[in-house]
Amino acid sequence: MKEIVCVNGKFMPSAEAKVSIFDRGLMFADSVYDCCPVAECRLINWNLNRARIERSTQAINLCVPERFWTELDEQVVEVIKLNKLREGYVYVQVTRGIGERAFTYLDNMIPTTIVSIGRTNIIKRGESYRGIAVCSVEDLRWGWRDVKTTQLLYQVIARMEAKRKCCQEAWFVSRGLVTEAASANAYIVQHDGAIVTRPVSREILAGCTREALLSLCRSRGLKVDERAFSLEEALAAREAFITSAMHFVTPVISIDGQEIGNGKIGVVTTELHEAFLTEIGV
Amino acid sequence: MKEIVCVNGKFMPSAEAKVSIFDRGLMFADSVYDCCPVAECRLINWNLNRARIERSTQAINLCVPERFWTELDEQVVEVIKLNKLREGYVYVQVTRGIGERAFTYLDNMIPTTIVSIGRTNIIKRGESYRGIAVCSVEDLRWGWRDVKTTQLLYQVIARMEAKRKCCQEAWFVSRGLVTEAASANAYIVQHDGAIVTRPVSREILAGCTREALLSLCRSRGLKVDERAFSLEEALAAREAFITSAMHFVTPVISIDGQEIGNGKIGVVTTELHEAFLTEIGV
Repeated sequence: MKEIVCVNGKFMPSAEAKVSIFDRGLMFADSVYDCCPVAECRLINWNLNRARIERSTQAINLCVPERFWTELDEQVVEVIKLNKLREGYVYVQVTRGIGERAFTYLDNMIPTTIVSIGRTNIIKRGESYRGIAVCSVEDLRWGWRDVKTTQLLYQVIARMEAKRKCCQEAWFVSRGLVTEAASANAYIVQHDGAIVTRPVSREILAGCTREALLSLCRSRGLKVDERAFSLEEALAAREAFITSAMHFVTPVISIDGQEIGNGKIGVVTTELHEAFLTEIGV
Repeated sequence: MKEIVCVNGKFMPSAEAKVSIFDRGLMFADSVYDCCPVAECRLINWNLNRARIERSTQAINLCVPERFWTELDEQVVEVIKLNKLREGYVYVQVTRGIGERAFTYLDNMIPTTIVSIGRTNIIKRGESYRGIAVCSVEDLRWGWRDVKTTQLLYQVIARMEAKRKCCQEAWFVSRGLVTEAASANAYIVQHDGAIVTRPVSREILAGCTREALLSLCRSRGLKVDERAFSLEEALAAREAFITSAMHFVTPVISIDGQEIGNGKIGVVTTELHEAFLTEIGV
């Protein structure tokens, strides 16, 4: 963590970057966030992430000043430049701000804005070529899963359970149906080649990579079926994969220890992964 | 916020009290908390709050060093003394600590501990004598409601909805049955005088005031029926009330705009409120 970050418009070394203990982000998880991938020093699909941050703030009635959006545009570009970030992500968190501890908040609060970066391989990520193992976990998250808030403890718990089982990701299951992964959207490929993923609703996060990928699928004439699927259906599918800002298109080769398809990376997933990289120009 | 607080064992003015932007409490709501009432400069039922903090940390696998508990005992006493706190509460928050942003955490993390205070009337709180209006809100919180984590955004949303409706609290309802209030436990008094409240489970928080009050009821020979009750039953009840660290026993005089009983503060609630104050020696 020896990077330059931006807190409330001020750029500083990450070691100095702090927020008050009375920040509502810390006390109440009263905050939203987003991660935008960076490849070859460029933001990927920033417009989608920016729009989602806007939807998230509106969903929890977190008011930001008008100048916020242009300032944020500048800050995300600047942290990439200052850190000479080639590949990884920009992390944006907006909290409702600082105040005496009370569940209700005042109208005139000043939001806290944090912009930081993470360095990680996303283009030539090993998992995209090796595939990942996932385990299923009962989906016990709150009801507003479409809002990207920092209420992420259950995702943390699920990912730790996955780690204990030597899996790289968890797939949430609610009433027998897969909702999404702990930090990604979930897909299966049927034996007829159709790509199946849960439609956007309050039950899942509308992934930016999901949105970009489904557009890509449709433009390539691939059949997309937006419907919920069961764990059993996933286990019997030809292929399975996830998408996220960090994972782009990453194959799932086993669920709960059972191989998907022949346990190898499928052709549709490989095609989509490569098409996605081409689409974003890397 | 001009008080003395304690962060990781260091006492400092609250304006200087900060945590890293990489604290998992801020990034993932990966933290637990508790509020212990203070009356006449004394902690009320600290042993119950302390035990709950211990249960909360264990529930999310947040490991604290052995010396943590004796240090915490000292810190909560010291913040009361340093701030000359006569009445209000001590707030304790423990996060998993600071680390690079990743859903999974390492075993050797150093928790962040915050001890602060709030000044507020709890003994002669107006609401205890006037009663409060509540509105019902669908319970869309996560599944581990028995763990006192800082994933409190839905409670914030519910309390804001209550405020808009000129109510002082929200009662959560799940499948027609009342679970609890946004920051309190919920009770009704039947026409035969029996006190009804939902039994402890994953659905509700095991309130320390709840525990103390139910003991008191039983020692006074009052009938306690620990079972779920519907909103309709509450609307037809003789009396209704809530308990919490800040509210002790506070009458509910209306739900969703409908008066409970005769719309006045009931005799059982008044008796319990006074008995509770006597029990804690104020």
